[in-house]
Amino acid sequence: MKLIREEDAVGEGICNDMKQLTHIDENGAARMVDVSEKDDTAREAVATGYIRMSAECFALVKNGAVKKGDVLSVARVAGIMGAKKTSELIPLCHVIGLTGVDVEFVMHDDACGIEVHCRTRTVGKTGVEMEALTGVQIALLTIYDMCKAVDRDMVMSEIRLLKKSGGKSGSWEVECRETSMDERSIFLPQ
Amino acid sequence: MKLIREEDAVGEGICNDMKQLTHIDENGAARMVDVSEKDDTAREAVATGYIRMSAECFALVKNGAVKKGDVLSVARVAGIMGAKKTSELIPLCHVIGLTGVDVEFVMHDDACGIEVHCRTRTVGKTGVEMEALTGVQIALLTIYDMCKAVDRDMVMSEIRLLKKSGGKSGSWEVECRETSMDERSIFLPQ
Amino acid sequence: MKLIREEDAVGEGICNDMKQLTHIDENGAARMVDVSEKDDTAREAVATGYIRMSAECFALVKNGAVKKGDVLSVARVAGIMGAKKTSELIPLCHVIGLTGVDVEFVMHDDACGIEVHCRTRTVGKTGVEMEALTGVQIALLTIYDMCKAVDRDMVMSEIRLLKKSGGKSGSWEVECRETSMDERSIFLPQ
Amino acid sequence: MKLIREEDAVGEGICNDMKQLTHIDENGAARMVDVSEKDDTAREAVATGYIRMSAECFALVKNGAVKKGDVLSVARVAGIMGAKKTSELIPLCHVIGLTGVDVEFVMHDDACGIEVHCRTRTVGKTGVEMEALTGVQIALLTIYDMCKAVDRDMVMSEIRLLKKSGGKSGSWEVECRETSMDERSIFLPQ
Amino acid sequence: MKLIREEDAVGEGICNDMKQLTHIDENGAARMVDVSEKDDTAREAVATGYIRMSAECFALVKNGAVKKGDVLSVARVAGIMGAKKTSELIPLCHVIGLTGVDVEFVMHDDACGIEVHCRTRTVGKTGVEMEALTGVQIALLTIYDMCKAVDRDMVMSEIRLLKKSGGKSGSWEVECRETSMDERSIFLPQ
Amino acid sequence: MKLIREEDAVGEGICNDMKQLTHIDENGAARMVDVSEKDDTAREAVATGYIRMSAECFALVKNGAVKKGDVLSVARVAGIMGAKKTSELIPLCHVIGLTGVDVEFVMHDDACGIEVHCRTRTVGKTGVEMEALTGVQIALLTIYDMCKAVDRDMVMSEIRLLKKSGGKSGSWEVECRETSMDERSIFLPQ
Repeated sequence: MKLIREEDAVGEGICNDMKQLTHIDENGAARMVDVSEKDDTAREAVATGYIRMSAECFALVKNGAVKKGDVLSVARVAGIMGAKKTSELIPLCHVIGLTGVDVEFVMHDDACGIEVHCRTRTVGKTGVEMEALTGVQIALLTIYDMCKAVDRDMVMSEIRLLKKSGGKSGSWEVECRETSMDERSIFLPQ
Repeated sequence: MKLIREEDAVGEGICNDMKQLTHIDENGAARMVDVSEKDDTAREAVATGYIRMSAECFALVKNGAVKKGDVLSVARVAGIMGAKKTSELIPLCHVIGLTGVDVEFVMHDDACGIEVHCRTRTVGKTGVEMEALTGVQIALLTIYDMCKAVDRDMVMSEIRLLKKSGGKSGSWEVECRETSMDERSIFLPQ
Repeated sequence: MKLIREEDAVGEGICNDMKQLTHIDENGAARMVDVSEKDDTAREAVATGYIRMSAECFALVKNGAVKKGDVLSVARVAGIMGAKKTSELIPLCHVIGLTGVDVEFVMHDDACGIEVHCRTRTVGKTGVEMEALTGVQIALLTIYDMCKAVDRDMVMSEIRLLKKSGGKSGSWEVECRETSMDERSIFLPQ
Repeated sequence: MKLIREEDAVGEGICNDMKQLTHIDENGAARMVDVSEKDDTAREAVATGYIRMSAECFALVKNGAVKKGDVLSVARVAGIMGAKKTSELIPLCHVIGLTGVDVEFVMHDDACGIEVHCRTRTVGKTGVEMEALTGVQIALLTIYDMCKAVDRDMVMSEIRLLKKSGGKSGSWEVECRETSMDERSIFLPQ
Repeated sequence: MKLIREEDAVGEGICNDMKQLTHIDENGAARMVDVSEKDDTAREAVATGYIRMSAECFALVKNGAVKKGDVLSVARVAGIMGAKKTSELIPLCHVIGLTGVDVEFVMHDDACGIEVHCRTRTVGKTGVEMEALTGVQIALLTIYDMCKAVDRDMVMSEIRLLKKSGGKSGSWEVECRETSMDERSIFLPQ
Repeated sequence: MKLIREEDAVGEGICNDMKQLTHIDENGAARMVDVSEKDDTAREAVATGYIRMSAECFALVKNGAVKKGDVLSVARVAGIMGAKKTSELIPLCHVIGLTGVDVEFVMHDDACGIEVHCRTRTVGKTGVEMEALTGVQIALLTIYDMCKAVDRDMVMSEIRLLKKSGGKSGSWEVECRETSMDERSIFLPQ
């Protein structure tokens, strides 16, 4: 029984023509990649996602946001708690002691959409990209849950990693990072 | 301290001009809607979502799928387990004893995308839409996790409810249900 | 191996001179009481608790409450989620599908205290008193956590059941219900 | 999106006239405070709490305690397990790898009360006060659960932090309040 | 997407020559079997397991058992809590509201072994065999954990279902296998 | 209230005539052993277990294994996720950030048995033996669950620690016991 180091695997993943999925061993079996020999470094990740709803529903959330903000406040708490639960939800994720989590919302009046940002931080042997993405997904699902009595037809889109830093593979940022909101809205159904 | 019945609230939500968010009380405070007086009925929901990746990454998953299917097999298990955890993740969701969960995948070679379907069933007082949506999100996140060493730039999109049945509000289905994949692909970034 | 019915046990507990702890069997061993043969009835419980803090800290929470209410809003969500987790936390509690949970706060300016109320409801074979009490405790702990940077010396007190209804033992209410805060202080150890 | 360091925040909290709640950002939004740059130091906290019951109920627990001690034995296990679950229960708590947990009970025959002590330890970037308080609360709730068939009118009181050590803010210990301290101080570790 | 009813599947499983695994669909994919149309009936299961240890270690546990019984008392609590967690641990298990759980121990002085019995009960659409087996396994693991400083060489064996009742397939009881039954049968209820 | 160091306790456990259970204090009360002062070292453990089934059932799993391997694939995921949950299941286990988990299966055609191996790794203050054993148990239970419609009479046996390394007590490996080793030793790594 042999454990392949994530260094090697990711190394191949990054450098070789023959890339491979590090969570699948040579026999095609799933495994939690061994990170025992990786250094503890400061790591950060930012993910984003987007939920589009009817104008009526959007107005209810936004007015709520002005008055007491409870939909977004509950979604923020759910996103933070969800990020902490990542290793319970994603089978091959390592247990990570997050040192910081932030969830933010941007209201897009024109598109009747809410954008979620989740930033996660740790000092450890493996990255926190999955924690950031999970935080976004749970926050989006919570908004859906709290609004579904008014609009069942909401769509969650463009959930993706924006950037990560730390670790052997260093920093990475999505190319269309500087994309402005209106540019990004081309990804939304017309 | 007064609990508003979901019947009334949803009633307003469905029938009145003055719709409202049932998870927010008259003071703007969050609450778990009281469903004590709702009947136990057979309920079902189907949700879907989509993850797009590089051609190289898609090929690795698909060949894996042909050989041992471990990426999708792990994602399926994660989606089923995630659906069961919904009430722990979404703050105002009720604890529901799911009677059945199914997760299926459709490979879209042209778009290098994987489509996830999650169907949930119960016999109870409240619907299982959130369980179906959560199952989809956790399955998508698991695919992302298992492929991220090869492609960090994957995007999860079009997570939505397809249909639900059962309960007082009866059956509902998304309009563009018969949308074919190529029609749907207009939702993807060009 | 014999299971004692809660009816019998509670029966003894209520009717006999020789009362007994239903969670302890004749050998002094812990057990989860068998409720298989109890009827499903509508049940409700209300619990309360109280946290005292410095005037300065109380002002920060209250002003926050006026502006965005985030301390109380987070504590409310935590209390609701905590109530749902009761059977994971209290070893011999049954798993209960709560049909409704409400958490409310009362600000006591004079005493610089915050009072928490949690109301839980279900339709089932066993009561929801523990769920209401757990909701109160988690809400109190969350307030403590969010305020501890300003005041480590907060005290949580008077956590108790106010009333319950439903089930074979019927309705019960604490006697000194209308007790005011200053009267309540007689409950503190002299 | 900017993360405020706990150093700065707590610094303000401790040193400045303008104290603030570190879990609330400048916009009043909840967040998990970033502790990435804090040192790993040995940390310890001790919390206490108290449950008062009828003489009859107290006698049943105490005799049990003499015979097999199962009520207190179950409550001890529940308190230890509860302390480990703190970050799942308190939304903005960090995930902490506790290195030690102890739960102790003191029987107060005169007052028909049981006092709970929970001591938690870790080596890490943030304190374990919440873990100690959560351990106390879950132990108290478990005693309540196991005794409620005999006495529904139990009251949990005086849940508070007794002392903490480690970290930048160093050691802190509760100063004896005049109220009942003469009696209570005998329960404080010498 | 088609759900196969457990009735049909189990039917095949029981009656046909071509038995099949109900948790695997016609494509070999895992699924949670749909039990929506099954009746709620009273169900019970009893499972057993066995841990062998050194004479020295066994004596420490047994003397402890005589004095305070804490090893077995902790293992009992862990087994009960573990049975409640079954649906979180076993991917395709349904969420079941257990109505009763009992864990018992039999000390075998001659064999230096401890036998664990776990009995689970519910009223619902699916059986509680997995809950009984999980309760046994977690109780055994807890004994191992509490004794491993003295004996790392303990072996857990003969974990099996003893009997189940309720549901469409009715009652079932293990028949003593010839293999080592002479020795093993002393652990089976007469 | 005094915490006994695991060093001392284990020291006694290994070296002295008067061995003791480190999870039980001098009063017979359970506690989580304090490991605050232990060094962070690389630790590894390997555990194994075995499930025997009918020839018919074994053939179904094995053919499945050849075709899609879903029973073993689901059991592998469950074992990995179970290993991560150890500290939630075993009351006195420390929370450990596993750096790697591997689950492997060996098919024994002759004995109609499946052998499970689980290897766990971490860099920390305490060992991962319980994580490896828990991974084995949950994988075995999952196989049982997925096959029980065909064979209720499966038996799980020989769950034990094979070896561990790291920490103050260093490396340890099981020596083949005489009991049935002729048969059993074929399951041990050569």
